[in-house]
Amino acid sequence: MVRTIDWVDGAVVIIDQTALPAAETWLRLSTVDDLVEAIARLAVRGAPALGVAGALGVALAAKTLPEADWADAVKRVATARPTAVNLAYGVRLAQARLDDGPDAALAAALDLRDAEIAASQAMARLGADLLLELCGPAPRLLTHCNTGGLASVTLGTALATVAELHGRGIEVSVIASETRPLLQGARLTTWELGRLGVPHRVAVDGAGPFLMARGEVDAVIVGADRVCANFDVVNKIGTYAHALGARAAGIPFIVVAPESTVDTETPTGRDVAIEDRGAAEVLGFRGAQAAPRGTDAINPAFDVTPHELVTAIVTEQRVVRPER
Amino acid sequence: MVRTIDWVDGAVVIIDQTALPAAETWLRLSTVDDLVEAIARLAVRGAPALGVAGALGVALAAKTLPEADWADAVKRVATARPTAVNLAYGVRLAQARLDDGPDAALAAALDLRDAEIAASQAMARLGADLLLELCGPAPRLLTHCNTGGLASVTLGTALATVAELHGRGIEVSVIASETRPLLQGARLTTWELGRLGVPHRVAVDGAGPFLMARGEVDAVIVGADRVCANFDVVNKIGTYAHALGARAAGIPFIVVAPESTVDTETPTGRDVAIEDRGAAEVLGFRGAQAAPRGTDAINPAFDVTPHELVTAIVTEQRVVRPER
Repeated sequence: MVRTIDWVDGAVVIIDQTALPAAETWLRLSTVDDLVEAIARLAVRGAPALGVAGALGVALAAKTLPEADWADAVKRVATARPTAVNLAYGVRLAQARLDDGPDAALAAALDLRDAEIAASQAMARLGADLLLELCGPAPRLLTHCNTGGLASVTLGTALATVAELHGRGIEVSVIASETRPLLQGARLTTWELGRLGVPHRVAVDGAGPFLMARGEVDAVIVGADRVCANFDVVNKIGTYAHALGARAAGIPFIVVAPESTVDTETPTGRDVAIEDRGAAEVLGFRGAQAAPRGTDAINPAFDVTPHELVTAIVTEQRVVRPER
Repeated sequence: MVRTIDWVDGAVVIIDQTALPAAETWLRLSTVDDLVEAIARLAVRGAPALGVAGALGVALAAKTLPEADWADAVKRVATARPTAVNLAYGVRLAQARLDDGPDAALAAALDLRDAEIAASQAMARLGADLLLELCGPAPRLLTHCNTGGLASVTLGTALATVAELHGRGIEVSVIASETRPLLQGARLTTWELGRLGVPHRVAVDGAGPFLMARGEVDAVIVGADRVCANFDVVNKIGTYAHALGARAAGIPFIVVAPESTVDTETPTGRDVAIEDRGAAEVLGFRGAQAAPRGTDAINPAFDVTPHELVTAIVTEQRVVRPER
């Protein structure tokens, strides 16, 4: 099974997610600068994968830099992207072992990697059971962004439940919301579902709520970049619109995310700083310029789905029902 | 003021909307063949503009062809786009005057052109008054697709209210939802707002409801492809999601459309067949392929916003309040 991110022979190795699905390119990141740049340009993305990237970044700093430079390098890794709680979490885990030297930090990072793999397997089983309970024997699901193995180390979060259902021989199908501006749904989720052999179709993001109203979707399943203490869910921009659609259509809206994504330090979604990734991502479309030159854009990378709209949050340990 | 379509020195003159915003190209269509080809490839689009194109097409046939060929030419104009109701409507208006000769048909077409211009002006005034009443002195609006002069002869529908507010010296600003898959918002609405000098930014479609929740939008304004007898609104895919967002945020959702769009023959939105325009529009963009080869898509071109979510429908004659 492919590992999106791993430690191989003294360097962090990732699959370059910006090149998919056109090319399957593996990158060897042997310096902190390489890793920070890869995180910033989303070559590695997804909450669990970013946690492992953060922890491995600390190990990379300790292994490649003089001790006087560790603190600065660790800070650069932790702040490479502002909204994902897992990145800082992974950094803290490995950083806590730095006093025992580079090997201890690396061991902590590899423990986190293995814990994320185990968490994906547990979430997949719990999530699949819940979907069968809520949707009946042949779930037709809509998902947003990418929550498969690419977003994690392997297997994933929301998409791991799809793989689990498919593996059990259940007739499951998926509408992949394309997820503008970076098209993680159209590019990555399709690539993963194609490899799994799960029937799927792409839809533009704006079509989601209408497809639900028309009765073509049994449940919405998504991942999370951060789950707040009150169970508000911070996830890829466009998630909230699907949650509104699910509520209006009377279908479940289910979040699958590891416990490492639950951030009890953040009381509500209003307390989360939402990254704006600038106009270029929106106005350029696969190399073509859509809008007139000089046009500006507003580009929040994430949105907040209030807990009242969330039917269930599935972690590797529990199924929470925030709407109740 | 630019006219998207007009009659100039014995020919139909249009701005080529497929070339915008990269190039502002005016086409002189001096034969029926030229006009039919321009309609078919969407060089001229938008319901009111297509009505005028149909009527001018009849005049063009009568002025350039022997009388024996009129019937065939008129039929080709009327069927250049099979689903466009306004096109056939415009053709019928001018055709009814053909017995009185080419000049009579042309006069009927020019009357329709002038009627569309007058309707836009009336809608703009009524809509602007309503927006000031509902949003206060500096409305921050979100719109979807393109509803400006390009979709009409000049001014437009929803976007005409923005031009009217700006012309009155009101501090109005607009978020243009990009409108996947064909990006009419990013390409055409931005171009029109830039020419008007109205401050504007593009957002991906999925961001609309979150921007409303965050308090960055005072009202949503859109056009309509069809208003049903019960005031359900059929419009570009993505409209319904914005309506859900507006309701959740407690802001007005306003539809601006001419009386000719109100279809009393169609009881509700459920009675409207929604065209699926196929996978290529979603998966490809100007030659770039987003998803893996062989991927399928579901691509409804329109959606239905139930009348319960519609704060007001503004026509050239009245302001209807369906939600009440």
